[in-house]
Amino acid sequence: MTKKNATIYDISKKLNVSVATVSRALNDNPRISQATKDLVMKTAKEMNYKQNNLAKALKSGETKNVGIIVPYINTNFFSSVIRGIEEELSLHGYHVIICQSHEDVLTEKKHLNTLLNAQVDGIFMSVSKTTIDTEHIQQILDTSNTPIIFFDRKKDIPGISTVTIDDYKGGYMATEHLISEGYKNICHFAGDLNLEIYQNRLNGYKQALIDHQFQVKEDNIISTGSSIDAGIEAIKTLWSKPSIPDAIFSSSDFAALGACQELKKRKIKIPQEVAVIGFSNEPFTQFMELPMSSMDQTPVLMGNMAGQVFIDHIKDNSSGVSIEKKVVLAPQICVRKSSKRK
Amino acid sequence: MTKKNATIYDISKKLNVSVATVSRALNDNPRISQATKDLVMKTAKEMNYKQNNLAKALKSGETKNVGIIVPYINTNFFSSVIRGIEEELSLHGYHVIICQSHEDVLTEKKHLNTLLNAQVDGIFMSVSKTTIDTEHIQQILDTSNTPIIFFDRKKDIPGISTVTIDDYKGGYMATEHLISEGYKNICHFAGDLNLEIYQNRLNGYKQALIDHQFQVKEDNIISTGSSIDAGIEAIKTLWSKPSIPDAIFSSSDFAALGACQELKKRKIKIPQEVAVIGFSNEPFTQFMELPMSSMDQTPVLMGNMAGQVFIDHIKDNSSGVSIEKKVVLAPQICVRKSSKRK
Repeated sequence: MTKKNATIYDISKKLNVSVATVSRALNDNPRISQATKDLVMKTAKEMNYKQNNLAKALKSGETKNVGIIVPYINTNFFSSVIRGIEEELSLHGYHVIICQSHEDVLTEKKHLNTLLNAQVDGIFMSVSKTTIDTEHIQQILDTSNTPIIFFDRKKDIPGISTVTIDDYKGGYMATEHLISEGYKNICHFAGDLNLEIYQNRLNGYKQALIDHQFQVKEDNIISTGSSIDAGIEAIKTLWSKPSIPDAIFSSSDFAALGACQELKKRKIKIPQEVAVIGFSNEPFTQFMELPMSSMDQTPVLMGNMAGQVFIDHIKDNSSGVSIEKKVVLAPQICVRKSSKRK
Repeated sequence: MTKKNATIYDISKKLNVSVATVSRALNDNPRISQATKDLVMKTAKEMNYKQNNLAKALKSGETKNVGIIVPYINTNFFSSVIRGIEEELSLHGYHVIICQSHEDVLTEKKHLNTLLNAQVDGIFMSVSKTTIDTEHIQQILDTSNTPIIFFDRKKDIPGISTVTIDDYKGGYMATEHLISEGYKNICHFAGDLNLEIYQNRLNGYKQALIDHQFQVKEDNIISTGSSIDAGIEAIKTLWSKPSIPDAIFSSSDFAALGACQELKKRKIKIPQEVAVIGFSNEPFTQFMELPMSSMDQTPVLMGNMAGQVFIDHIKDNSSGVSIEKKVVLAPQICVRKSSKRK
């Protein structure tokens, strides 16, 4: 649709000078006269030539740009990890480019190509919910030397370093907290179990119940999305069953918020009748009518660590060594009114 | 720090074949034998050659990528505008790269270069608070043909299309609403007046007061940032003066939230004693203990419109016409409990 952009070949042809002269003029080489430089610059502009400093970057082998692919940017968790990566990498002169997969593996794939084409020095990513097959990631490892670092939502691929939190421990801690507050029938809003993080939170929940001599009831485990509506629907489903829960551990703060809204509508008292604890410690949890408990994933720290892993990787790589790092951070529990009965 | 990446020239030298052969092999040209292709691919990998599809893109004149520069991504407003741009452009096969300026004009400048180097087909931007001088933007207009579109926070630069909301009207509507609810001494938390948007909101506030025969008191206009702490500080300042306000129109939801927190701490009743209305309609405003009124900026629509302006620009440009568009959207008032006394 656009006018075709001219190349330096087109400019060379038009001016009847060599390609090298055009290139040198555009790069302000002292061997070229000012008159020629001016002529080349003017012609380049007229012919819609896009100044391409990339050539310079390719020579040095570095663009000092890194790419980040996240499912979406509009949660505190992902925007904070991004901030953490930027904080760390800006110390080393890197700039950050961000892409959203919108939980779609095809979009994720296209963004990987976009970033490679933009010649980034490294890629940080948290995979989408629909990323089951990882061939598109494996292919980059096989055909390029661009390091990839997974954070939070990872896949086990040899050669890729990861920075995650201990989601199993997070699930365990949240459940144990509810038990210690005297709740007896704890249900779990499980996220998309294609993702390891949600599988691990579920496993932590189960183990905490077992360790405290509670029964794991399949009816109490309900698969939800990460939206407010998903939480509302989950309450509708659970409250239609004979054994009504007295506590909810939700793998998503947004689903937990939906649960709170639906419980309020039904005049069910939090935390007296039902406790609620979410996961991610989104800022809104503190501002709610009844502040909500949640698990903090220390996202800025996660980003800092991911940045450090990348810097280490670059250093290792320059000395010919490549070490795969697995950094696991500890989650932190934030107990607020929604789960405090004692 | 990294190993230097090889170019196709290095590969050609190593294999003692022409540059054209290497290029064709890498681009899977049918004129090259499979054996040669395999050898070139293998050598390229060994020599740390970064596959560069950009060359192809440069030939066609389009990368089908666009860049967005925002001050930060972690507010609902900016992440929603980005979503709106993506929604619109994905229909036309474009992908979106996002950069954050963190309100720093130097970072903004570097990101503009990063995006140009990544050969984006267009740049959408909302300027930083420290962008006073616009030479870095003017320079891109002068030396490249990459269209720039401003949204929300614009600068008046000939040749750049803009999509904004009517901030003056927003300020006017918010103030008029408070007057209609019977509040008499309305103060204003003004944002950074280097930005047109905040200047316009302030002007709207003043005009509404004048039109309703209220006095504009300079003591009632207090310059704040866009943070919770800024709102807390503003209350402390205002409540130390002799004439205490009975209503607050804040140009920022976050500052308004800080005001609500500080008022609650001082046991001042909202909306009975003091009304509060914010600006941006951040999602948390609905979930607050006392839901807060705000001005909705229709950010997704703003993004959609910016996307359409870009598509129009590309079409116009291909027919040799360039039209500067100025799209102005109407804000919408969301009245909630925090400002409803009647």
